[in-house]
Amino acid sequence: MARIRKAAAIGGGVIGAGWVARLLLNGIDVSIFDPDPEAERKVSEVMKNARRAYKAMLPDGLPREGKLAFAGSIAEAVAGADFIQESVPERLDLKHKVLAEIDAHAAADAIIGSSTSGILPSEMQTAMNHPERLVVGHPFNPVYLLPLVEIVGGQQTSGEAVERARALYASIGMKPVVIRKEIEAFVGDRLLEALWREALWLIKDDITTVEELDDIMRYSFGIRWAQMGLFQVYRIAGGEAGMRHFMAQFGPCLSWPWTKLMDVPELTDELVDKIASQSDAQAHGLSIRELERIRDDNLVAIMEALSRQNRGKGWGAGALHKDYTRRLSKLAQKPTISKAAEKAKAAKARRKKG
Amino acid sequence: MARIRKAAAIGGGVIGAGWVARLLLNGIDVSIFDPDPEAERKVSEVMKNARRAYKAMLPDGLPREGKLAFAGSIAEAVAGADFIQESVPERLDLKHKVLAEIDAHAAADAIIGSSTSGILPSEMQTAMNHPERLVVGHPFNPVYLLPLVEIVGGQQTSGEAVERARALYASIGMKPVVIRKEIEAFVGDRLLEALWREALWLIKDDITTVEELDDIMRYSFGIRWAQMGLFQVYRIAGGEAGMRHFMAQFGPCLSWPWTKLMDVPELTDELVDKIASQSDAQAHGLSIRELERIRDDNLVAIMEALSRQNRGKGWGAGALHKDYTRRLSKLAQKPTISKAAEKAKAAKARRKKG
Repeated sequence: MARIRKAAAIGGGVIGAGWVARLLLNGIDVSIFDPDPEAERKVSEVMKNARRAYKAMLPDGLPREGKLAFAGSIAEAVAGADFIQESVPERLDLKHKVLAEIDAHAAADAIIGSSTSGILPSEMQTAMNHPERLVVGHPFNPVYLLPLVEIVGGQQTSGEAVERARALYASIGMKPVVIRKEIEAFVGDRLLEALWREALWLIKDDITTVEELDDIMRYSFGIRWAQMGLFQVYRIAGGEAGMRHFMAQFGPCLSWPWTKLMDVPELTDELVDKIASQSDAQAHGLSIRELERIRDDNLVAIMEALSRQNRGKGWGAGALHKDYTRRLSKLAQKPTISKAAEKAKAAKARRKKG
Repeated sequence: MARIRKAAAIGGGVIGAGWVARLLLNGIDVSIFDPDPEAERKVSEVMKNARRAYKAMLPDGLPREGKLAFAGSIAEAVAGADFIQESVPERLDLKHKVLAEIDAHAAADAIIGSSTSGILPSEMQTAMNHPERLVVGHPFNPVYLLPLVEIVGGQQTSGEAVERARALYASIGMKPVVIRKEIEAFVGDRLLEALWREALWLIKDDITTVEELDDIMRYSFGIRWAQMGLFQVYRIAGGEAGMRHFMAQFGPCLSWPWTKLMDVPELTDELVDKIASQSDAQAHGLSIRELERIRDDNLVAIMEALSRQNRGKGWGAGALHKDYTRRLSKLAQKPTISKAAEKAKAAKARRKKG
């Protein structure tokens, strides 16, 4: 099975630190570069949450954690790494600069994944000497818990790199989905963006508050989508007549004059203020760290609940979770001494006996 | 506490039958009218699933089920009902006809809820003599499990009716959210519609298959939205800097040229065929009934998992689930004999003893 031996993380924000946490908790050493003087503290905060979540997932013990090293440069961070994940801010010029530097110093066969949530890999790989090993590996927050990673190759990406990336992401418990055509924002963020834009209108026009809108989601289709996606859910909603019936019934709505759906709301200061203050009210005094812990507990509980469904085989993210935690448990039980040391020990025992 | 004494259901499709199931399992008698000769069989199929799900929720026993009567007319169905739920197909002319008939025969103070997922209550209540008691009560499938109901009043709806509707829906374990302004498709379906339209483009353009798209949802933001909605999730994603930071970072994407988002895809036969056949493949041989049972098991398991979170107080739909199942358990333990009969029994026992 594919295995990451040593990883590098370039960028340690919410997403970068999430990658670091997933890798370390899989027992993989990580070298990180982030020029932010606060990076070490921020990464350690995310690690604290991640360790807590994995302890809940693995009550019998965690694998030995990988070692984390803070590098002074990109060159230093990528030295010796066979897997490099870039998670710097979403500016093409910055991506070019950072990827060129990674490219110059990384082993020629290292896989380079970019966490970009929207930029085309073809546009990012133009400044690289070995563009064939760059893929987009777009994760979802919190990266240490949510399994999805969208893999997108650019025009110069090799099919082999896509396959290796898929295997490497799967080896750390993720669900890789390869997107077959390169489009801005890929698939997940296209869907999120459509919903987000509509949500902004609903807040702007005072139809709901952010708390009411969130409740509308999490007491209805949110629960559905934790286990089946849009199409499977609608297949069932069609009842005995199935998908065709559903399409016939619901399809015509598409051209109804819900014009707001089609415009882009302007993010005025007024709208940002409204959302920020309604969001403060919705938090009911809980800090971001407290909300994070509640979220993580909930996510683990949902995946565990799904891991016991489908006659014990697990369903969706639950089936993956079952497999992932089983593998991590095995890794945790693995003796830390090497095979050679084990042999020597056995030989010594034989001598004593004899 | 508000209580439905006798309910009527007009329409027994997937949604109507879901209402019937929720009401009966709450111990409420229901009279249903549906001209479909297959209605009785269809409703009993839904009841079978619902009973199964409630048994999983309430291992110590269910409340005594309400009685179901199939009425020969709307007039017969609504006689004596204090709560009437209309779930007929989404055509305004049909809604007018059915609501006029309900209105003519129902008690003047009965609450009338419409399951419409998009038509304005103001447009529906024009043909009624007592329009003040009509509200939209828009549920989500499966109605017997998903708690959300969007309540929307029309121009002629009284504030008192909205409040009574809220209390009655809450009394059968639901999460009522009152939408403060009347707009087509309300809130939930606005959000669903935005995402659905974008999904159709992604399938039409062969970016993904329906199975890949569903996986992208259920291994990422689907799990998140089962417990926190869009805004709370993004508040956390902003990290320590919170909501403002998130808006500043993600906001500009809104005006990027993702033009496809803004057009309506045409539902050609070709697109319908593609989706229907990809959906067949995705079902992996499972029938609609089998998929329904898997879905229901998953939904119950997720709500149960969430009911144990937040230091045992439950979180979101889980907190509601905890309260709902507790109330149903109490109802199940209620002796079915009357207080008078109980007294007489006790007196008899005393006589025997003495």
